[in-house]
Amino acid sequence: MTSAADAPPAPPIRTDVLIVGAGPVGLFTAFEAGVIGLTSHIIDNIERVGGQCVELYPDKPIYDIPAIPVCTARELVDRLVEQCRPFAPPMHLGHRVETLERLDDGRWRARTDKGLTFEAAAILVAAGNGSFVPQRLPLDEAVPLEGRHVHYSVPNLDEFAGKKVVVAGGGDSALDWALALRGVAQHVTLVHRRNGFSATDSSVANMRRAVEAHEMDFLVGTIGSLNAPGQKLASVEIKQIGGSVHVDADHLLVLFGLVADLGPIAKWGIDLQGGRIAVDTSNYESSLPGIFAAGDIAGYPNKQKLILSGFHEASLALRKAYNYAFPDKKRVHVHSSYDAKLAERVAASHA
Amino acid sequence: MTSAADAPPAPPIRTDVLIVGAGPVGLFTAFEAGVIGLTSHIIDNIERVGGQCVELYPDKPIYDIPAIPVCTARELVDRLVEQCRPFAPPMHLGHRVETLERLDDGRWRARTDKGLTFEAAAILVAAGNGSFVPQRLPLDEAVPLEGRHVHYSVPNLDEFAGKKVVVAGGGDSALDWALALRGVAQHVTLVHRRNGFSATDSSVANMRRAVEAHEMDFLVGTIGSLNAPGQKLASVEIKQIGGSVHVDADHLLVLFGLVADLGPIAKWGIDLQGGRIAVDTSNYESSLPGIFAAGDIAGYPNKQKLILSGFHEASLALRKAYNYAFPDKKRVHVHSSYDAKLAERVAASHA
Repeated sequence: MTSAADAPPAPPIRTDVLIVGAGPVGLFTAFEAGVIGLTSHIIDNIERVGGQCVELYPDKPIYDIPAIPVCTARELVDRLVEQCRPFAPPMHLGHRVETLERLDDGRWRARTDKGLTFEAAAILVAAGNGSFVPQRLPLDEAVPLEGRHVHYSVPNLDEFAGKKVVVAGGGDSALDWALALRGVAQHVTLVHRRNGFSATDSSVANMRRAVEAHEMDFLVGTIGSLNAPGQKLASVEIKQIGGSVHVDADHLLVLFGLVADLGPIAKWGIDLQGGRIAVDTSNYESSLPGIFAAGDIAGYPNKQKLILSGFHEASLALRKAYNYAFPDKKRVHVHSSYDAKLAERVAASHA
Repeated sequence: MTSAADAPPAPPIRTDVLIVGAGPVGLFTAFEAGVIGLTSHIIDNIERVGGQCVELYPDKPIYDIPAIPVCTARELVDRLVEQCRPFAPPMHLGHRVETLERLDDGRWRARTDKGLTFEAAAILVAAGNGSFVPQRLPLDEAVPLEGRHVHYSVPNLDEFAGKKVVVAGGGDSALDWALALRGVAQHVTLVHRRNGFSATDSSVANMRRAVEAHEMDFLVGTIGSLNAPGQKLASVEIKQIGGSVHVDADHLLVLFGLVADLGPIAKWGIDLQGGRIAVDTSNYESSLPGIFAAGDIAGYPNKQKLILSGFHEASLALRKAYNYAFPDKKRVHVHSSYDAKLAERVAASHA
């Protein structure tokens, strides 16, 4: 019997451009690559095409796609899938690029978490905001307590029954969980860095009434340190303007909101700028030659997170990618409207 | 009686952004300006919207507008007109900006050839390729002979009957006119800088046969100077590798092809680059603060003449234009899909 580990690794998939992200920008990149004569493969961590558009707001109307007065995110994605159909870019959904390595010939080798290997002349990252993850507490001592005493979400309210709980944060999530814990926990203390909240007015009013009624405490301050002898949380130091107070606590619930996380991309050795891939605005190339970024994940001065910007960024990136794929060829500029071969291809795919 | 010249000038039209060009990019600029809270007016030299798309190839299919697998240029323009309808940008068609002047408060005053005056915080030039005009002979002495002895087009073949004609150029137009003049003119000499042509193969073959049959002459060389005593053309100096020859001529027909001409824009004192307005790719601003360019007329390294690029360029330009219109206001970034006011406006305009 042969186990998967014994099986020979799949041969690398060779392509001109590996597109990381199957959202609107990734899909249009596959179309535009085809137009200028580049092959491409698309890979996405999520099991379906459409990226965060479809994950976060599939039915919300979008008004600012040029020449489309209104469409939903889902319709936008359907249109882009149809548009790239003439080039039938192979899609590898549910895969994430884990490692990236430059080959001696200048090409890039990318390996996914599920064992696929790609060798590409260029990689275009159109990964949107990456994944959204809870913003972590910036304290080293919090890490070993995660899941037992320090929490970034509430899978089960019963866990806090009869316990002393500190809730940190000032948004809806923090206020709503603090209010919900009143009847469950022994004692609830809400901690926020200022006496003003980004939560809805009604949640703030409810919280203030609960504090007046001594159903919970509210402290203005930040989490200074955790006192956890034997890796068991005993109290939380709250830093305030005048000094510090220590609040007894069995659990600390940190609800600072979500932040975009680049995931493995952050470990590729690429220059980042404010959590995005820093690019040159003449060709949207990153600090690594042959690695490009387009869409929300691309960072440069005056960057606007408009879907239409991603289309332009990808189009310019592909012109430079072409040079990596065909270093000896001078690309003839193609307007798709004049391209008879493309016209045939589109007609055939719609037949 | 009061003549037009005695009438008081119309008061200046004040707006946040004056958009020069009513092609696809100009139309989308008006929409995007409305989305971020800027007023705009559109002006175009041509009497109808659509720019060169509609003038040059109204019914040609376009495949590379993102999320629109195929549409004609005319359909594209119709869609963009509909998209900007919620903001009802006033259009001034058949007007051309002749002069531009910076006011003491930093705003710009633009005057059109038909007497309109605009005062705008920013001007966005989306004038495509400007107008197409014949490429001129780079000789000062040719200017006073234009229309009489030096021609850039052939309005009437009879004018050349029995005359000695030199035709300069190597494209279809030059070869076809040289061939057509054989039976009309007394003598025809074709002059081109090299013994290779950009004309169709059949025209080149016809021309070579005509030269062999002594129906016309062909010289490799360039026009060095014109000999025109008393402003009457007598001969043309042809510069060749070994020296010069002089060819007797009554008429010189220069058919070097069309070049885009910026028209009055070239006299605004703006930095140009290869016949386009040089812009910074972070905000598409020109060398003049508050003057922006988007679409084919914008020049920068790796510029691609894609319609979709113009949409992005205009969108980024407008963010900076906003700062000129409202220097004290920090603009809140707007995704149109989250903008309830815009949604109402779009719904109302479609009702």
